[in-house]
Amino acid sequence: MQRRSGPLTQLRRGHEELVLGLLRRHGPLSRSALGTHSGLSRTTLHEILTALTANGAVTTVRQESAPRGRGRPAETLTLNPDAGQAIGIDFARRAVHVAIVNVAHEVVGSASEAHEADLPWDDRAELAERLVGSLVEGSLRLGALSAVGVGVVGPVGDPGEDGAQRLTDLPRLLRKRFGVPVLLDNNTRLAALAESIWGAAAGGQDVLYLRLSHGVGGGLVVGGALHRGAHGLSGEFGHITVEQNGSRCGCGGAGCLETVASIRAVLQNYRAEGGRARKLSGLLGALSEDDPAARRAVNAAGGKVGAVLAALCNAVGPSVIVLGGELTEAGDALFGPVESALDEHILPMSRHKVSLRRATLGDVGGALGGIALVLHESPLLSHYPADPDQGEDS
Amino acid sequence: MQRRSGPLTQLRRGHEELVLGLLRRHGPLSRSALGTHSGLSRTTLHEILTALTANGAVTTVRQESAPRGRGRPAETLTLNPDAGQAIGIDFARRAVHVAIVNVAHEVVGSASEAHEADLPWDDRAELAERLVGSLVEGSLRLGALSAVGVGVVGPVGDPGEDGAQRLTDLPRLLRKRFGVPVLLDNNTRLAALAESIWGAAAGGQDVLYLRLSHGVGGGLVVGGALHRGAHGLSGEFGHITVEQNGSRCGCGGAGCLETVASIRAVLQNYRAEGGRARKLSGLLGALSEDDPAARRAVNAAGGKVGAVLAALCNAVGPSVIVLGGELTEAGDALFGPVESALDEHILPMSRHKVSLRRATLGDVGGALGGIALVLHESPLLSHYPADPDQGEDS
Repeated sequence: MQRRSGPLTQLRRGHEELVLGLLRRHGPLSRSALGTHSGLSRTTLHEILTALTANGAVTTVRQESAPRGRGRPAETLTLNPDAGQAIGIDFARRAVHVAIVNVAHEVVGSASEAHEADLPWDDRAELAERLVGSLVEGSLRLGALSAVGVGVVGPVGDPGEDGAQRLTDLPRLLRKRFGVPVLLDNNTRLAALAESIWGAAAGGQDVLYLRLSHGVGGGLVVGGALHRGAHGLSGEFGHITVEQNGSRCGCGGAGCLETVASIRAVLQNYRAEGGRARKLSGLLGALSEDDPAARRAVNAAGGKVGAVLAALCNAVGPSVIVLGGELTEAGDALFGPVESALDEHILPMSRHKVSLRRATLGDVGGALGGIALVLHESPLLSHYPADPDQGEDS
Repeated sequence: MQRRSGPLTQLRRGHEELVLGLLRRHGPLSRSALGTHSGLSRTTLHEILTALTANGAVTTVRQESAPRGRGRPAETLTLNPDAGQAIGIDFARRAVHVAIVNVAHEVVGSASEAHEADLPWDDRAELAERLVGSLVEGSLRLGALSAVGVGVVGPVGDPGEDGAQRLTDLPRLLRKRFGVPVLLDNNTRLAALAESIWGAAAGGQDVLYLRLSHGVGGGLVVGGALHRGAHGLSGEFGHITVEQNGSRCGCGGAGCLETVASIRAVLQNYRAEGGRARKLSGLLGALSEDDPAARRAVNAAGGKVGAVLAALCNAVGPSVIVLGGELTEAGDALFGPVESALDEHILPMSRHKVSLRRATLGDVGGALGGIALVLHESPLLSHYPADPDQGEDS
């Protein structure tokens, strides 16, 4: 996690976001209208507009229709639709995914390319730059406001921790390439954030995301923002103990959810009951042919997943649970037992207040989450009122 | 939970808090210095200072030492230390606790009085008013900025829910009595917030609080603010399932943490092993005499508590866990097994990043939390930079 900005920078950034937000919602505005709406002093507003114009985020439009000969023609300010606001990159295990939004927060496009698991970081960064270039096609300008939000595999804790070396090199590498600040987080957590904005839980302020893939991980969105925890170690749902004296887990513990609900664990359970599949596709094929052993293996994982989700709901109180990852392709065989266990273990008065949904963003979720991270970077952004014209909060 | 303010009110409130914050940190300031520090326009600043002066939060001091005969004497603005900023009231089952802070956020005092469990709400409100009066002694003025933060027993969900009737009447009742807005929350959650500000986890931004009393409940502080969840149903740690086919719980579920770690559950387990105590004091006495059955009963509860805490740590990533409630008087017999189970089940890389502490605020925690709720009420308050003079964030 990056912490680059002091309080004064934050206040300034908050004022910038206030001005950008007004232009986003009202369209072109005069300087005096901006002053009235924002409550900022002329000096502050002048400084901010100078900076925003210099970096290309805001452009000046001269009102040709204004009456001539009566002093200077009226000037209005507007967002520059060609200015890039944020790039998201997800460095997954065997692929790079990228996505871009403009200053109006519209997703301009996304792209992906697979690679070998051992591809060096320099080559991955180059691949990311090439993918971004393919989307931009020379028409998008990355102003000084832009930043890159980056998802990576594994926990993203404090800098200087075990294994965090790569995570201090990567931002440097990318900053050199793109010339803008880089924000880093775990790609599963970023997918959680993206699902809460553009995906299955769009608009959700409190969202619990669980990903069932080769590993089991997740993320919490709290009050519309990504929750990191005190040391960046949150959303580790895969390492919640679900079996006393269970199998050893890669994390060093035993009986973790990951040891019963990862793709590998489910396949193992299936084979232990006579199944033959070595890959998820085989298991899914067996499910579609109603193989009882395949169904039991997926059911068992679903039951444990539901129990963990219920505990988390009692603690955190989300409105939506999103299940993602390849294992969700098992459909009802998974979701049925998840729902049942959730029903059984959730606080009864919460039962009808949480909905369980399947993730919708797929592979590009992590990259989109990187963008969301950039858009949320200003600590003030999400706390300025959404739209003064829309009246009272609901 | 109250939602009274529209976006414009919020923006205005944010500007007010910005001005109050500057006066709190810098002491007396001139109007022009306030303008420079805040970045607000003269018009906005004038409006805000007029309102803050009118309600008694801010007073004007004429600089007697200023050179005479050169225009108007210089005027500085300062916080009015006699203006009450917030009252906290905790309506516990059998007692009312109150606390007050002034505009400088100093705790002016606290008071408590026990009552019968069936005392009507009108009488409880009157008792609260009397206790507040005993602290104020006519010297404290409750300006228009003031509000009352109130803790109550049980879940505080959406208005209109089952059993929420009392919770819609209570704010009305108190508003009439105190003439200021009323904010309501569960008193255990408020205790969590208070411990994170003034108690065992003072300064902690991400804190997990668990209370082991006649019931088992808790609260989460996330990013320095109380976490409520989408429907106000968070922190229900007592209803996380810890035993398959466990005892029925008052919530309608079975095998909840409350069924093994409440005072009543521990006493029951103790008696099942031949113990004779009917009250916690008896159990604590037996513990102090090294009664093995008493120790086993408390140990067993501690083990379950530690396992739940580990799961929550993996999910939420707090820096501090605070254990509160009367059962913590069992000391090491409880804390030992909690630590062991926590060690066993927490993600190994998080093990040394969370500290377990005993609550320090006791009975007055809920009332102090009510005050914190009021101080946090402005959505902007906690997000303005703490102090522009203190340089970079750590």
